[in-house]
Amino acid sequence: MANSGDTITLKNIASHCKEYGFIYPSSEIYDGLGATYDYGPYGSELKNNIKEYWWKAMVRMNENIVGIDAAIFMHPTTWKASGHVDAFNDPLIDNKDSKKRYRADVLIEEQIAKIEGKIAKEVNKATKRFGDAFDKDQFVATNPRVIKYTEQIADIESRMKSAIEAGDLEALKQLIVDLDIADPVSGSRNWTDVRQFNLMFSTELGSVAGEAGKIYLRPETAQGIFVNYLNVQKTSRMRLPFGIAQIGKAFRNEIIARQFIFRMREFEQMEMQFFIKPGTEMEWYDHWKNQRIKWHKALGLGEENYRFHDHLNLAHYANAACDIEFNFPMGFKELEGIHSRTDFDLSAHEKHSGKKLQFFDNEMNESYVPYVLETSIGLDRMFLAVMSAAYTEEKLEDGSERTVLKIPPALAPVKVAVLPLVNKDGLPEKAEEIMKAVKLDFNAQYDAKDAIGKRYRRQDAIGTPYCVTVDHQTLEDNTVTIRERDSMAQQRVSVPELIATLDDKVNIKNLLKQL
Amino acid sequence: MANSGDTITLKNIASHCKEYGFIYPSSEIYDGLGATYDYGPYGSELKNNIKEYWWKAMVRMNENIVGIDAAIFMHPTTWKASGHVDAFNDPLIDNKDSKKRYRADVLIEEQIAKIEGKIAKEVNKATKRFGDAFDKDQFVATNPRVIKYTEQIADIESRMKSAIEAGDLEALKQLIVDLDIADPVSGSRNWTDVRQFNLMFSTELGSVAGEAGKIYLRPETAQGIFVNYLNVQKTSRMRLPFGIAQIGKAFRNEIIARQFIFRMREFEQMEMQFFIKPGTEMEWYDHWKNQRIKWHKALGLGEENYRFHDHLNLAHYANAACDIEFNFPMGFKELEGIHSRTDFDLSAHEKHSGKKLQFFDNEMNESYVPYVLETSIGLDRMFLAVMSAAYTEEKLEDGSERTVLKIPPALAPVKVAVLPLVNKDGLPEKAEEIMKAVKLDFNAQYDAKDAIGKRYRRQDAIGTPYCVTVDHQTLEDNTVTIRERDSMAQQRVSVPELIATLDDKVNIKNLLKQL
Repeated sequence: MANSGDTITLKNIASHCKEYGFIYPSSEIYDGLGATYDYGPYGSELKNNIKEYWWKAMVRMNENIVGIDAAIFMHPTTWKASGHVDAFNDPLIDNKDSKKRYRADVLIEEQIAKIEGKIAKEVNKATKRFGDAFDKDQFVATNPRVIKYTEQIADIESRMKSAIEAGDLEALKQLIVDLDIADPVSGSRNWTDVRQFNLMFSTELGSVAGEAGKIYLRPETAQGIFVNYLNVQKTSRMRLPFGIAQIGKAFRNEIIARQFIFRMREFEQMEMQFFIKPGTEMEWYDHWKNQRIKWHKALGLGEENYRFHDHLNLAHYANAACDIEFNFPMGFKELEGIHSRTDFDLSAHEKHSGKKLQFFDNEMNESYVPYVLETSIGLDRMFLAVMSAAYTEEKLEDGSERTVLKIPPALAPVKVAVLPLVNKDGLPEKAEEIMKAVKLDFNAQYDAKDAIGKRYRRQDAIGTPYCVTVDHQTLEDNTVTIRERDSMAQQRVSVPELIATLDDKVNIKNLLKQL
Repeated sequence: MANSGDTITLKNIASHCKEYGFIYPSSEIYDGLGATYDYGPYGSELKNNIKEYWWKAMVRMNENIVGIDAAIFMHPTTWKASGHVDAFNDPLIDNKDSKKRYRADVLIEEQIAKIEGKIAKEVNKATKRFGDAFDKDQFVATNPRVIKYTEQIADIESRMKSAIEAGDLEALKQLIVDLDIADPVSGSRNWTDVRQFNLMFSTELGSVAGEAGKIYLRPETAQGIFVNYLNVQKTSRMRLPFGIAQIGKAFRNEIIARQFIFRMREFEQMEMQFFIKPGTEMEWYDHWKNQRIKWHKALGLGEENYRFHDHLNLAHYANAACDIEFNFPMGFKELEGIHSRTDFDLSAHEKHSGKKLQFFDNEMNESYVPYVLETSIGLDRMFLAVMSAAYTEEKLEDGSERTVLKIPPALAPVKVAVLPLVNKDGLPEKAEEIMKAVKLDFNAQYDAKDAIGKRYRRQDAIGTPYCVTVDHQTLEDNTVTIRERDSMAQQRVSVPELIATLDDKVNIKNLLKQL
């Protein structure tokens, strides 16, 4: 455990997640599988609760949004139409001596980071030398060495940007040569050419000759919605505007999968595609930006932890796009994307399938391919956002420390712990009776082992918002105490009122009502 | 629509599923992808409700069962240990002329079916000739031609069985040659040898040279539980007996994937592995047989539609096994398996990983590898079971017909439809107000289009158990009618009592209470 007041790192969170059954490295007995994780007992419950909150906010709260659950396997032409077969690539380079492979742009970025390190060193030295009188901005703007470094960085960034935008792999290679970049492992400068590497996982479907064919594991769930657009629109009798929501796995063969569950090769998305009349997209873009940020803020993870980041370089399919960024332990990073995708996808599928994917607009008396407004959030990233904001190390009044997960009660894996104060005097029997009564309504946990203080700490560590304690007074007047996780305050409640009192605090409905 | 009284076929159900937004063929605009399906708006809700019923029955109702959610990607040694790399095969044969590939055993079975057809023909002829006086059993036992056919079948079956059990692929090929089996497509008898074909899908993980490696899409979710056994046991502080439950996708490259969603290449499992003391497995085997059949029967799909089928030929890992079979339109077929897996899996993982996977038993004062009792149900099959039992074509008293899905109310995708009797006189406004009040509690649908009778039919077709109709009386006394789907009976209820009345009928809690 880090000391109170220390900065919380991803490592603290990952280690807590493992110790308390939220997330384990996948196949750990076989020393794990790169960047793959398994959700444990509390993790799977928290993940399910996040899904429920999203699904209900989307599908139940909006009469014009319906859900689907498309297969991971799709017809391969889907990915030709979407552009993934041709353009979903990373530029890779191999070192001929070490046989290690790298992302060319990442090698260059690491070089930039090194120069930034040199600047930081100069700044540190100067800070020490000048003390309080030090003006950092002025120093950076005037110090000849720092000016040289800054110019170097600007030059590298500009060359890299134009090489990537032009898809000029030779220019990328030349930059690596000019910067004299060595393999971080072997120190060798013996590089291959830069080549494009597709990020989709592929496999062979079917074993019957003739039918066999290369298919892909979907790299995004969105296309499962687009290819079903017409079937869904007709069978659910929808008219524009309407939306289709989906939660499901997607797969990307990332070269550098890292930062715990932030970037994994197998991950889960919660996506909603909203089909609209062309020309109305900016209005809906604003609408969904507002709706989505409201959904996040209703959780109470801290308004200061969110910010919008507008995309300046738009993807080929978008005419407006932004991210909702969250303040993770490694800084503000993308949590959710809101994209105005125009008619790019539906038109591409029209072209490749030869099927009309249009909507007949009664008012206009004409057919057109709808525009699409997308909201796309990474479920695993959302999990990490909740854990990042929830994980707290506190010094208590008595001098002791506790680690507590301040998970929003409606999302907490265990809602209620039922604890007999002591494991005798008829208290366990009474507590078990209460456990029986509440467990149909909440995910509840019974715990009678160890001193009550130790049990509270255990429940704090898994984020249980309420502990119901059965004590001797319970046997007299049929009341229990409810201990609240964050304030540690206790309240006495009569047993017959228990379920209603708790439900009022932990029901996901209370989050939905704020939307 | 089939005529009332006709036998319901898989085709009726598949076509209803497509027309009403339950299930679409995957990537249909690209003419589909073999044996892959997408769940539509109502299908995804029904599937979610089945998951919820199973998860709560397992994890919430049993304090000693916890859930996990392991990744689809696992370390490849997992599948070496489990036996899938070496033994999860089908025997395949190619026709050299047509280039078509077949399962050798299926070609032989089709030959048997042909001979059975000849027997049926003889029986039919004799039935016509002898009329009422015909004794089928006697005829089959004495007719020389039928006796010859029966002996042929017995001979083929015995040769096939011993070839398969011995893994003797040459003997299988010889049987195909001896039976003079021709390619059903080309008529050619020009066959290759029989070869084993592994049913696991494989892909390449990572793009960094050195890290790259062949991995598999998991063919079952069970191994995700076994490799996490120790992590889960420790972090959830469990002692034997305890269970781990999981819902997730699995993948098998079936040669013959067919029968709608009954056998798909991508499918979803709901599995629970119960860890027990060796020697207690038969006791727990009986316990879980009882628990699982109770879970099924609580749904009210008809007790006569279930039967147990004991495995006589046990899998290499089992010392007792049975299926719960359901009466699907194509007959009684496996819906769920209950298997006593002994310590086969944990011991194999101990051996391949070099890690101890044991439990220290305080009472015995010794460590041992636990035995495992498994319950494993196919989620898609469960979906098909519900649809098979629910799909009903009825002739009504007025001579008209209706198609109604008698889905158990707690599982129904839409719980409540709110319908203004007419789309005027202030009824829509009142109905929308009621819709607003109920939609946080239930998946509700508002429908004001077309005559009320037509709207009832639409709700029948998607299985909505209750229609709430707002009529002119509603404006006078604040009451509505609740129309029950199966009986079509109507009941008048005051609006303030509406949510409680409906909740009492559709809440999954009421199913759980029966367990």
